[in-house]
Amino acid sequence: MNPTWMADQIVYEIFPDRFAIGHPHTSDTKLALPVYQQSRYERRRWDELPAQPPRGRDFFGGDLQGIIDRLDYLTELGVTCLYLTPIFTAPSNHKYDTTDFFQIDPMFGDETTLRKLADALHARGVRLVLDAVFNHISDRHPWCQEHPDWLAGTFWRGFGHMPELALERADVREALFSVIEKWNAAGVDGWRFDVAVDVGLPFLHALRERFPNQVFIGEIMSHPAGWCGPTALSGVMNYVFRDAVLGWLNGEVSDRQMQRVLAEDFMGRWDSWNMLASHDTPRLRHVLPSEAVQRLAWVLQFTLPGAPVIYYGEEIGMDGGPDPDCRRPMIWDRAHWNDDLWNFIKNLIELRRNRPELRRGRLMMLEAEGLVFLRATDEPHEVALIAINPHARLIRQRVFTPHPHLYHSLPLRNALAPDDTVTMDAGNVLLELRPHTAAIYLPADEMERYRFFKPRNRVASHRAA
Amino acid sequence: MNPTWMADQIVYEIFPDRFAIGHPHTSDTKLALPVYQQSRYERRRWDELPAQPPRGRDFFGGDLQGIIDRLDYLTELGVTCLYLTPIFTAPSNHKYDTTDFFQIDPMFGDETTLRKLADALHARGVRLVLDAVFNHISDRHPWCQEHPDWLAGTFWRGFGHMPELALERADVREALFSVIEKWNAAGVDGWRFDVAVDVGLPFLHALRERFPNQVFIGEIMSHPAGWCGPTALSGVMNYVFRDAVLGWLNGEVSDRQMQRVLAEDFMGRWDSWNMLASHDTPRLRHVLPSEAVQRLAWVLQFTLPGAPVIYYGEEIGMDGGPDPDCRRPMIWDRAHWNDDLWNFIKNLIELRRNRPELRRGRLMMLEAEGLVFLRATDEPHEVALIAINPHARLIRQRVFTPHPHLYHSLPLRNALAPDDTVTMDAGNVLLELRPHTAAIYLPADEMERYRFFKPRNRVASHRAA
Repeated sequence: MNPTWMADQIVYEIFPDRFAIGHPHTSDTKLALPVYQQSRYERRRWDELPAQPPRGRDFFGGDLQGIIDRLDYLTELGVTCLYLTPIFTAPSNHKYDTTDFFQIDPMFGDETTLRKLADALHARGVRLVLDAVFNHISDRHPWCQEHPDWLAGTFWRGFGHMPELALERADVREALFSVIEKWNAAGVDGWRFDVAVDVGLPFLHALRERFPNQVFIGEIMSHPAGWCGPTALSGVMNYVFRDAVLGWLNGEVSDRQMQRVLAEDFMGRWDSWNMLASHDTPRLRHVLPSEAVQRLAWVLQFTLPGAPVIYYGEEIGMDGGPDPDCRRPMIWDRAHWNDDLWNFIKNLIELRRNRPELRRGRLMMLEAEGLVFLRATDEPHEVALIAINPHARLIRQRVFTPHPHLYHSLPLRNALAPDDTVTMDAGNVLLELRPHTAAIYLPADEMERYRFFKPRNRVASHRAA
Repeated sequence: MNPTWMADQIVYEIFPDRFAIGHPHTSDTKLALPVYQQSRYERRRWDELPAQPPRGRDFFGGDLQGIIDRLDYLTELGVTCLYLTPIFTAPSNHKYDTTDFFQIDPMFGDETTLRKLADALHARGVRLVLDAVFNHISDRHPWCQEHPDWLAGTFWRGFGHMPELALERADVREALFSVIEKWNAAGVDGWRFDVAVDVGLPFLHALRERFPNQVFIGEIMSHPAGWCGPTALSGVMNYVFRDAVLGWLNGEVSDRQMQRVLAEDFMGRWDSWNMLASHDTPRLRHVLPSEAVQRLAWVLQFTLPGAPVIYYGEEIGMDGGPDPDCRRPMIWDRAHWNDDLWNFIKNLIELRRNRPELRRGRLMMLEAEGLVFLRATDEPHEVALIAINPHARLIRQRVFTPHPHLYHSLPLRNALAPDDTVTMDAGNVLLELRPHTAAIYLPADEMERYRFFKPRNRVASHRAA
């Protein structure tokens, strides 16, 4: 399966209630709107923490206009694809309990606001992915009364307020397909499928038949094998990637196991989402307190196959434990940002956008201590050598690089530390990696000017075996 | 090549002179029979040890009726297939020096006793495998006089009393094929071919042509590649398995090498016999003195592809060094059994019989310290995660499990220690293995009732990539 446009994206995930309140509202005026005035609701100021325990009834007032107002920020960072958690009408703050698939929740805006957002994004070359929550609905959804036979008779994870839909029924499928059609027409580019393991392959097969070319990403928490392909999903939210990175960086996963897990190919890998944090997990800073170690995770996210997904606020070093603490409102006061981290991530984004081998190149995992791998296309100059030392000791090792365009005596420069250069030997290179550091080595010379390369020798047959 | 019925068996190997003396005989009355009264023979009481050095001339009086009398014991243990070392007429106690292929040795019974045994076994759903000793005969076999041209002119391993047959001759082949035909008609289900490397592939090809569907297991002491397949053997006695297990548990074989040896697939593997001991090797207790370590070997035998073969007496913890010490008479006084071990093995047998993935599931060797592997079929609930720590240190590691039906948050229970449960993360699990312990983790919930699995989603396309 060839990668789709998703393989090239830098995705940014927004939990709309917590990202930004749109002009001309303030927290006070926004939360004074009638839609927030239910007795069981809590209204919170932007500098407060989410309510504990998480019951989904505390609101901060973020909305679609708030996102539109911050598009310069996203563009400056380099984001190319926006993923919004659910925005259709639902009683909770997270909106995973839909009561109307055909309306934008009035807390967030309306259809006009969504079209405005989509148009503004597209004008900047940014794509829009929405959250499809099709496994279950709210028990207040009118379908519960109007179409009791559309319900499966079960509840998601046993929660009585979330009845599951009978997704095997043709009429239910049609109703849900029409949701996709409606919002595609408003400018939506792709969809993320909530709890796709519950939704199941039979529904996804039918979905793919109806929408042969759209990007569909599935929330698959188990191993992704079997879920992606020409008749199923384009990619998955790659939770295995996250557990592997965190497990490796906290010592639960050996170098060898990490090499094997990352080297494993699966259908849809290039289109899958590599996340380090999401609205369902603690933030990276919470699980990896050392910023040096956090940066190793970021380097992996931006150099492996799969689209990096940045959960809002991660790029400025926001903290937060498990739900709801990971859903604190976005910090817009730059005085409270980790500027060094922000610049580091902005550079990684720019690097990935500039380097085709990082987006679509094949992955060659090398035998080494720590983690050393190549990304390369068939173009001679599109090659990167990534080396990461997660250990507290120096690693000095000669690594063999089975790629014919890494010519003897070619200088490689570390994109993360331009003073750091190494020189290729015959199909190998001597690497010295300080503790807790990463390097992204790129050909230091323009290949066209490089003495070992002649344009007449540019042939496609140099693909590594 | 698809597995045959052999893949599902629990095989029990009996050396007939040493298993049991049949009703109404006692040791005294049995050994008083004329057939035992040769001058070079020794007659031994059941509680004596085999004669040293092993010359094959000491007899304890075991017979086929003795086996018939003990079928309740075999059924209680859970055995499903009986393998008898040779039972045709021959002067030695081991009967590998045949003088008449068409007669049951009178020490063991006659054709009627064999038919009675076969019928009784089949009535209990137990199959019967006999030993085909076709490479050589006794120098007293009448063929030596009647058909001197049937002899190859060589002797097995140079032993002058065991002339080798000219197996390339059509008439010799016909004579031997008629042996198989005769005893098949008496109820024999399959055959184990003695010294099959000497017998050779040309004979085995011809054999397979004549008997296209019968189970043939070959004694192949070298690597099994090339010996099994649609035109050759169904499987081999897997001596590589035995050496790998013993070498790993005594520290001669590294974890990595063990993983590689066990992960290697070969044609016929599912039908091959995994043995830890036999009449030709010291008993397990003799080579692995620690019972905790012995149990790790048993766990491997019952969880890897290939039919486990239990050499009589191993299940009660009998001791014994190399031949002839490993051929002591079976102990029937339960006071001298290792009851804990017997129950442990009985439980392993029951587990294997109840779990299709252990018999016919594919094997996925995982990257880990110690040994961690999956067995799984395409059925969602047919999956087992086996983890073994042969080291004296605790192993704590996160292991990635490339199998889509090990759903996030699925609880797994250790069949060897029901209080020990672990919970799946996203395509991985954190394991803590105490020194010298093994675990067989199975889904703790019935999948059908499992909240993450819906029957509508049962599709075959989930096969791991």
